[in-house]
Parts: sequence; C-alpha cells; structure tokens
Amino acid sequence: MQHSIRIGIAGYGSLGRGVETAIQKNPDLQLVGIFTRRAPETVSPCFTETKVFHMDALVDFQNQIDVLILCGGSKDDLPKQTPELASKFNTVDSFDTHARIPEFFDAVNAPALANKKTAMISIGWDPGMFSINRLFGEALLPDGETYTFWGKGLSQGHSDAIRRVEGVKAGVQYTIPSTDAMDKVRSGSRPELSTRDKHTRECYVVLEGGADAAKVEQAIVTMPDYFADYNTTVNFIDEETLRNEHNRMPHGGFVIRSGNTSDAHNQVMEFSLKLESNPEFTASVLVAYARACYRMNQMGQYGAKTAFDVAPGLLSMKSPEQLRKEIL
Amino acid sequence: MQHSIRIGIAGYGSLGRGVETAIQKNPDLQLVGIFTRRAPETVSPCFTETKVFHMDALVDFQNQIDVLILCGGSKDDLPKQTPELASKFNTVDSFDTHARIPEFFDAVNAPALANKKTAMISIGWDPGMFSINRLFGEALLPDGETYTFWGKGLSQGHSDAIRRVEGVKAGVQYTIPSTDAMDKVRSGSRPELSTRDKHTRECYVVLEGGADAAKVEQAIVTMPDYFADYNTTVNFIDEETLRNEHNRMPHGGFVIRSGNTSDAHNQVMEFSLKLESNPEFTASVLVAYARACYRMNQMGQYGAKTAFDVAPGLLSMKSPEQLRKEIL
Repeated sequence: MQHSIRIGIAGYGSLGRGVETAIQKNPDLQLVGIFTRRAPETVSPCFTETKVFHMDALVDFQNQIDVLILCGGSKDDLPKQTPELASKFNTVDSFDTHARIPEFFDAVNAPALANKKTAMISIGWDPGMFSINRLFGEALLPDGETYTFWGKGLSQGHSDAIRRVEGVKAGVQYTIPSTDAMDKVRSGSRPELSTRDKHTRECYVVLEGGADAAKVEQAIVTMPDYFADYNTTVNFIDEETLRNEHNRMPHGGFVIRSGNTSDAHNQVMEFSLKLESNPEFTASVLVAYARACYRMNQMGQYGAKTAFDVAPGLLSMKSPEQLRKEIL
Repeated sequence: MQHSIRIGIAGYGSLGRGVETAIQKNPDLQLVGIFTRRAPETVSPCFTETKVFHMDALVDFQNQIDVLILCGGSKDDLPKQTPELASKFNTVDSFDTHARIPEFFDAVNAPALANKKTAMISIGWDPGMFSINRLFGEALLPDGETYTFWGKGLSQGHSDAIRRVEGVKAGVQYTIPSTDAMDKVRSGSRPELSTRDKHTRECYVVLEGGADAAKVEQAIVTMPDYFADYNTTVNFIDEETLRNEHNRMPHGGFVIRSGNTSDAHNQVMEFSLKLESNPEFTASVLVAYARACYRMNQMGQYGAKTAFDVAPGLLSMKSPEQLRKEIL
C-alpha cells in the first residue's frame, strides 16, 4: 500500500472549501491543512478535523506536503503566488485568464524547472476539461468547427455589473446558451453564429425603494460590453425570492465539434457539463489533477504543465492494469 | 519544418479506406501505401495516388514507415497481427474485444518493448474516446455512477443475426438508446437501469418470397442474447427501400457521469458522438493517435499503450505553445 498523497490548500474561499470537501471523496489523498492569510482561529473549516494554519507557516511544511492546491483568484493572487510557491512545492492552480496563459506559463515554468517541481496550471473546466475537448475536436476532426457555449450559469462579473446600476439593491445574472444555435451546430451545418445568436442573458433584480424599474432595465440592457450585444431580459423580484431561489452557483456548458471525415459524412462530438455548484466541481477537477501532478513529479516531469500534458490514466485512483480491465 | 510522419495501412476494408481518407485531412502525415493480403492490382484505392502493395512486402518498408495502422478485425486478424508487427513497427490498432484487452496488451507489450517500438492498442471511440470519458467521470466525480448508451447505430452483429433467421432475405438492425433512461440519468437521480430500460432494437427486414412475416417477427424478437432482453420492433420493407434508406453506417452514443461533490450538489458530465460513418470516424481517431504514437516513440516511451496513456496535446498538429495560446 502506497502512502497517501499529502495535500495542502492555499487560500480558503469557495474554491478552497470545495477542495477540502473533494478530498473526502478521494481515499488516496490526505489533507495536511488549510493555509490562509486571515487569522487561522477566525476560519471555520467544513470538517472539524481540518487544521488551519497561517500562510506564513507554509515554508515549514515543505517536507509534509506533496502537492499544494492554490485556491486564490486569477486576477490578484495567482500571478504572484504560483511563480513563488512553484519553487518550493508541486502546485495545482485554476488560473483562468485565457489571454494571459502564455506569460503565466513562462513565469511558473522557470522556477518549477529550476527546483524540480511540477506546477499544473489553468486546471478546472474552462480552461481545463473544455480545453481538452476543444483539442480532441480539432485533432480528431481537423476539417471542422468548434463551438463553445456556456451556461446555464451564474456569471459573477455580470452580476457585479448589474449591482453597480443606480437603483439596484441586489441582483444576479444567468448566461443561457441558445438551444436554437446549439441545434443548428448539432445538425452539422457549421453555422456562423454572432455573439447575440449564441447566448442570452437573464437578470433577476431587486430594486432600491423608489427606483424606476423602466430606467433600471434600460440601463442594464444597453450596458456596453456586458449586455448591449445580447438579448437580455430583466426580471424584478423581491429580496426574499432572491435569497431563496438564486442562492446557488450553477454553471456548465457545451463544447461541440462538427466536422467532416469525407464529403459524404459529417460527425459531431459533444461534451457538456451541468453543474449544481461551479466551485465544487472546479475543486474536484483540481484534486484529480493533484494526483497526476504528484505522479508526474515522481516520474521526473518537472516544470509548468497544463491539462494538455496529462495522460488521462494519471488522474485515476486505479492502476493501469485495473483501468484496462475495468473501463477501457 | 519537421518531416511528415510516414504512415502505412495494413488491411484495406472500410476502416482502411477511412484511414486513407483521414490522412488527406492531416497535412503533417504522409501515406506510404496500403498493404493488403489480396493481389494488389485487384484493389482500388479511394485516391489515385495511393500505392498498393502486398502484405508480404511490409518487411521491406521498415525504414520507410514511421507508424503502421492496423485495419484488420478484432476477432481473427489483430490477435495475430499486432504482436507480430509490433516487433517491427510502431503500430496503432482498434482491437475492441473489451474482455480480452488485458491479454492482448500483454501479447503486444513484450515484443514492442523488446524492439523499442510503441504499440497503441484499442484505439477508436469505444474502446477509446468513450473509455477516456468513463475515466474522466470516475476520476473527477468519484462519488457517482457512469452510464454508457450506444446508438442510434447500425449493429453489424445483430444485423447478421437477423439475416440468419429462416425466411429473411436481407435486413439491418439499429440500436436505439432510450431517451427516457437518458433523461433520468441526466436528472442526477442515479437510476438503476436494466438492459431493457437502456436500449431498444429496431429491425428492417426484407422477406424471402412466401415467407411468413408473423413467424419471422416472432423468431427475431424472442432470439436469446440478441433480442429477447430488449424491446424489439420489426419493420418489413422491400429490397429497394433497404438499399436506398439503410445503406449507411451511422453510430454513436453517450457516456454520462452523474455524481455528487457534496450532499447538496449533483454534477453531470456528458460526452456524446453522432456519427454518420462509424468506420470513417474510427479511422480519424486512429490517425490522430498515430501522430501521438510516433511522438511517444521519439520520446522513448516504448511498449503497448492505450488511450489512457496519451497526453491530449500529443494528438494535435499544433505545438504546445500554440495550443496554450489558442485553445486552452
């Protein structure tokens, strides 16, 4: 029996809580503790046995942690944290600013390589599982088109944008993929789809006392970048409804590849996720990739890696023999 | 610019034709020729520039072929061919007798290892892409259930079984996944499904002159192993309809994983294929894995490999840098 893989969690928001929860479902992994910038005694973990330490104590745990899962944000935390921590630990993060991945990769790769660490970057579902499916689509059907649809999902950025509108007390926004557009893609016709064709936006808004609903609605649907390019509907609700019916973080989406293997034959590949909790699923992906990260480090595969570099078998608790026998 | 990867095709049925066609869509691959057990001059390739050789000539091509794609059948050809040819070539095959994969792996692994060759076995969509998605499902949602549905698809084995019934002149059989069952799975309820719940079988039959339709129908729907455990419908058609409307080889299916990341949250992952030509898609998968096979051999990864051992990035024509920039 191998020893368990020892995991540390750096950062304890909804993603960190998801990782703590996911580790319970993976008997070959063991949680060393949560590392937070807050005062440890002010943090209440999901499970009473979970230990909480201050982030400054991390340096003392270099020999006790096999993989450190970084649960900070892509905007302010990870660009600084990952390059720094990848020189001391094997790491997994969910850096998801797509446009900045190449520079992030370089910033992480150098210290990881220099210190024989493995740093798994941009793991999750997009980037992550969706990226893998975009790659499979292109590689298996080179003559084709890939379409990514998101939703139905709560968008944090768009919800924030609504809340900044004058007269809005609270609100959430859902991104909804267009069934029409998806059906066209699935038919094999390789349609050209505009931004407006692919997704609609649904807003649920609680007004400030005395606010003008028509004015608020107008301000939302015409907001550039966020709503103007979409068909947007605004629903006004009371605070209790918001609290009861819109307190979850569902998300998901679809990656569809439509391509031809010959003039006569169209082929459609589709991958989709329907998530009741976006952070818990992302966390679950991070945890499986932590297993692969540890194994690749043991195999001498150092430096920054992405989901494209990970053989699927490395994600599983099962041995290669078991996998071939049971699920191939 | 790297040199193209040089591909040989061993065996020239519908799968071999699919590989020949797929290579046209992959500019970094180059077809050396088709190797057949028939007299080469009796074989008409899909493209006039394709060269056809006798299988006995293969030995002379060891230095001219980077990867040999084996397009024979799993029952009689591959169990003999792959172990033999994997000592001389890097190979890719579509061995699909699930229960015999472990012994096939061993039989191929030894000669490949001994001769520093890479032998990619059991590639295609099931085993292959479906297996990868079963693995992703288990690894990312350990607390869950996986459901595989096949179809709508033409089943060769079941079509053959129909044609052996007395009074049947010709016929085809389609396997149809149950929409009801799939919807139950997608709802997150993790239903227990019997064989009869998951698929129905649809037969299109041309009768011999004077045959008794009721008797034929009865013989089909009660046939053990093939039809007795399913809800089977039998449609009688004339020969022209069979020729015009049932001359394709569509297939596909669904791998659905439903699991919980916590008591509160269910998550559903789904992968599906809708294929107008089963052999052409399988061929297209083989060709992408031939690229990975060549690269893994160059990296010194010898022996038998399955889809579980292949990092997704190795399948792509694009460089790791391009992949991170464009589709991660």
